Amino acid sequence: MVAIAGRLFGLGVGPGDPELLTLKALRLLRAAPVVAYPAPEQGYSFARSIVAVWLEAGQREIPIRIPIQPRQPPDAIYDAAAAELTTELERGNNVALLCQGDAFFYGSFGHLFARLASRYRIEVVPGVSSITACAAAASTPLVMRDETLAVIPATLDETEIARRLRESDSVAIVKVGRHFPKVHQTLRELGLLDSARYIEHATLPNQHVSSLACVDAARVPYFSMILIRRRGQIEGQE
Amino acid sequence: MVAIAGRLFGLGVGPGDPELLTLKALRLLRAAPVVAYPAPEQGYSFARSIVAVWLEAGQREIPIRIPIQPRQPPDAIYDAAAAELTTELERGNNVALLCQGDAFFYGSFGHLFARLASRYRIEVVPGVSSITACAAAASTPLVMRDETLAVIPATLDETEIARRLRESDSVAIVKVGRHFPKVHQTLRELGLLDSARYIEHATLPNQHVSSLACVDAARVPYFSMILIRRRGQIEGQE
Repeated sequence: MVAIAGRLFGLGVGPGDPELLTLKALRLLRAAPVVAYPAPEQGYSFARSIVAVWLEAGQREIPIRIPIQPRQPPDAIYDAAAAELTTELERGNNVALLCQGDAFFYGSFGHLFARLASRYRIEVVPGVSSITACAAAASTPLVMRDETLAVIPATLDETEIARRLRESDSVAIVKVGRHFPKVHQTLRELGLLDSARYIEHATLPNQHVSSLACVDAARVPYFSMILIRRRGQIEGQE
Repeated sequence: MVAIAGRLFGLGVGPGDPELLTLKALRLLRAAPVVAYPAPEQGYSFARSIVAVWLEAGQREIPIRIPIQPRQPPDAIYDAAAAELTTELERGNNVALLCQGDAFFYGSFGHLFARLASRYRIEVVPGVSSITACAAAASTPLVMRDETLAVIPATLDETEIARRLRESDSVAIVKVGRHFPKVHQTLRELGLLDSARYIEHATLPNQHVSSLACVDAARVPYFSMILIRRRGQIEGQE
């Protein structure tokens, strides 16, 4: 049975601009009879929207609906999704699983990988991640020479955020959303507001980059980022 | 003069597999009359080799030769390279500057950006970075859920490396090269050898992934990486 099973491709489709798809992800996407992608409980899938122009009518689509505030444990959702993918793989169909940004940089792919990797051949195609996309949008090097970088979610408490900010040359705070006021306050206390840039919707037509002073805390989306570069400030950046 | 100046494109060309070029980098590369890239003092440019199949005979090429052990200060090298690019930009020529991996994730682009950004229009096109490429090669998620990631160069001393390993859920140690024995020893002392994977030449035909026990310390290249994931170990990986 396994000898004829399909292969699963975890395709990083990049941060949002459809042109930031890699040639390899495009080739594997177009060749796959089945295309799966994460989606909210209702409404459209961001990952799918990135590659929508390349999808063909004959491809079977499997949205993996992950509620933002799940009523059932996330494990049950991933179990069900893995079962649905298993059905296709056992039929011998290759499945392209779309991953916003990069498959192994946050996101839900890791949960499905954990459930399927022991039974099926999986290839992960790395994609352009949100941190490099945000650095490009902000015209700010992430790291140079022997600098250190910390990537931390804004869900950490103030003490933990402050510690990373003190110890790292460069920090990317991801998943900012409703945690913006806490992060803003921490940066102010450390005197780092002038080194921080806020980025939302990087690489999309509505991309927005600003200082933290210009951000409306009530409107910060979950997929926003704050980049702080502490040393080696580059001349000529905004 | 500036009104007709060319534009500089910092193109991330990905970690090595020519298919990991983005559609956008390919479009801008092919449209550029001038293509510049870092290269060693003698021999071929890795960044150029990634896109070699796409280069056309009519494109003027500018290798930016950066000695591995420079006799003159690196600043003088970047000053000279910036002057050479300036000549092309003042002629009105757009210049595609190739960057291995991502333009703002280590690498020399930041130094040229610092010298040219105040005078010319520069667009940075983010690329697939080595950390996501290595995670894919090692079949290891970099970060999931609310995990933290530290990216550190192997040049740090043992104490600093150990501190990051204790405080982060996931650590990417870059530029390993001759520092391998120090890193190995630090990981052993922390009991983290089983959580570590060594990766060299990610995404290239000679890609090699192994446990640290199988690495010959005398043959570790500069562009190698060690990934350590401390918690949330994924079942079924390898």
